[in-house]
Amino acid sequence: MPRSEFELIAELFAPLATSQGALGLTDDVALIAPRSGQELALKTDAIVAGVDFHMSDPADAVAKKALRVNLSDLAAKGAKPFGYLLTLALPKPVDEGWLRAFAQGLADDQRTFGISVLGGDMSSTPGALTISVAAFGWVPKGRAILRRGARPGDLVFVSGTIGDSGGGLAALEAGKREPFLIDRYRVPEPRVMLGRKLRGIASAALDVSDGLLADLGHIAEVSKVHIAVIADRVPLSAALKRFDGDVVRAATAGDDYEIAFTAPRSKRARVATAAKAAGVRVTEIGFVVKGRGVALLGRDGRAIPVGRKGWEHF
Amino acid sequence: MPRSEFELIAELFAPLATSQGALGLTDDVALIAPRSGQELALKTDAIVAGVDFHMSDPADAVAKKALRVNLSDLAAKGAKPFGYLLTLALPKPVDEGWLRAFAQGLADDQRTFGISVLGGDMSSTPGALTISVAAFGWVPKGRAILRRGARPGDLVFVSGTIGDSGGGLAALEAGKREPFLIDRYRVPEPRVMLGRKLRGIASAALDVSDGLLADLGHIAEVSKVHIAVIADRVPLSAALKRFDGDVVRAATAGDDYEIAFTAPRSKRARVATAAKAAGVRVTEIGFVVKGRGVALLGRDGRAIPVGRKGWEHF
Repeated sequence: MPRSEFELIAELFAPLATSQGALGLTDDVALIAPRSGQELALKTDAIVAGVDFHMSDPADAVAKKALRVNLSDLAAKGAKPFGYLLTLALPKPVDEGWLRAFAQGLADDQRTFGISVLGGDMSSTPGALTISVAAFGWVPKGRAILRRGARPGDLVFVSGTIGDSGGGLAALEAGKREPFLIDRYRVPEPRVMLGRKLRGIASAALDVSDGLLADLGHIAEVSKVHIAVIADRVPLSAALKRFDGDVVRAATAGDDYEIAFTAPRSKRARVATAAKAAGVRVTEIGFVVKGRGVALLGRDGRAIPVGRKGWEHF
Repeated sequence: MPRSEFELIAELFAPLATSQGALGLTDDVALIAPRSGQELALKTDAIVAGVDFHMSDPADAVAKKALRVNLSDLAAKGAKPFGYLLTLALPKPVDEGWLRAFAQGLADDQRTFGISVLGGDMSSTPGALTISVAAFGWVPKGRAILRRGARPGDLVFVSGTIGDSGGGLAALEAGKREPFLIDRYRVPEPRVMLGRKLRGIASAALDVSDGLLADLGHIAEVSKVHIAVIADRVPLSAALKRFDGDVVRAATAGDDYEIAFTAPRSKRARVATAAKAAGVRVTEIGFVVKGRGVALLGRDGRAIPVGRKGWEHF
């Protein structure tokens, strides 16, 4: 008897509902019990085949990316993720192998991050495969690290290295073998532990998705300050330096999913301690002054002309 | 100066973030403060152009449907909705008129239901316009009306009338003028007040989306009971009786977004009181016995053969 796609989906996704509040995916809603002293942080993001990923990408990596772009936002706010909702719009007929690998990617990341699917919906689509995730985390009340807290005199930091993902995409498109960069493009690493350690230290934070300069521009705009980034300090991986090494491209490519943040100068040592505790490299790359906007400073202290500061979806 | 689509989206959607926790859509996450004694109910559903709606449908009605299919699930559980997340995958170039009307539909329903957008994401897509909503509501702890509580001896009820939406879709496809049925198809009416009034009365409930029989089958499966529906009692609108009147089609068409529920026989009078308080017609349509599955009973008391009991996405 040929098994229906409905049964296949149930078989693949029901085991992912490990949280009690998911009600085994046998009801219409999930229920989340409040936690005393904690706020719920929520974030949603969709990825589309042909735009944000390719159907030829490994399906488990696509699943991880769909989750992680959301977990990264929670991380940057200092929240600890615990669950997610998922909608999938799938072209017919469903590719069983693809869907199995996709579910395996979700299962792997559920273990990695200690999260559970809470609910979902599968539709068919005449168009591109579309994956929408809404992710949830807990953060102690009033302690989420928002964009609005940067102040003149603060220092600017970023975790990890910048531009690898953009390099990975360029390598893929050029058919070049750059496994480190391509892996950084396909499977970002949300800095969950670093974000939590930065609570009470960082004055403003976000994850780098649009591009380092564009995202620091978001902090500058909401905090009503000017942010200066010193080009020579932007941390580039050895692999990216070999492959490209252009700091303007790196700082505008986006999809890094590192945490960019500001902190008072008086907390510089505590930033280092937090980075060490989280096991993540953190680099001081600039400073906050009065004014508006963001600038990338060259060795002469002058702003390097930058065309587009980052990615816009439209 | 031609305005970018990015600015258009900001102009249309930022005013919808009326909840404080949405942070004016200027941050990466929304924050929800817990409510003492309340659980958070969540539901996600996506709708796809060409599958769940047509691009020629009025855009404000599409927005309302995207929201309401989710609010209906919260309603059936007895939860009071307060907010939602939205992802839109839009074909390029963006149709400004369509998007304006879509945002207006959201604004109207935010007022109708007392809800606020909490966050969102816009992507472009090479395929079909896809709208994913995750909706949130509060329900007193332990009082959500789940699917699992139906017991032998309970009665079965449904709100409103059944089959109008299926009739509306058939009318649209046949080019027939049936404004009542078409409106029921395009803009469902979540029974939010009825659901809340049924807390402590209904033993199991859900909203009718797949089809009355299919959805009662979901209750039967999870509650491990048999549900019998008396065909003559299934409430059909005058408009549907004129247009079609086939009860099997009505009970399997789906997209009704009425609440189907079970309640102990001892609470029959309280069901009537709840319906009156909510201003919604509620009809007793059947009963729960030991066994499994669902049956539609004819005048002779025998099961009417029903092919497919409802809608399956795959």
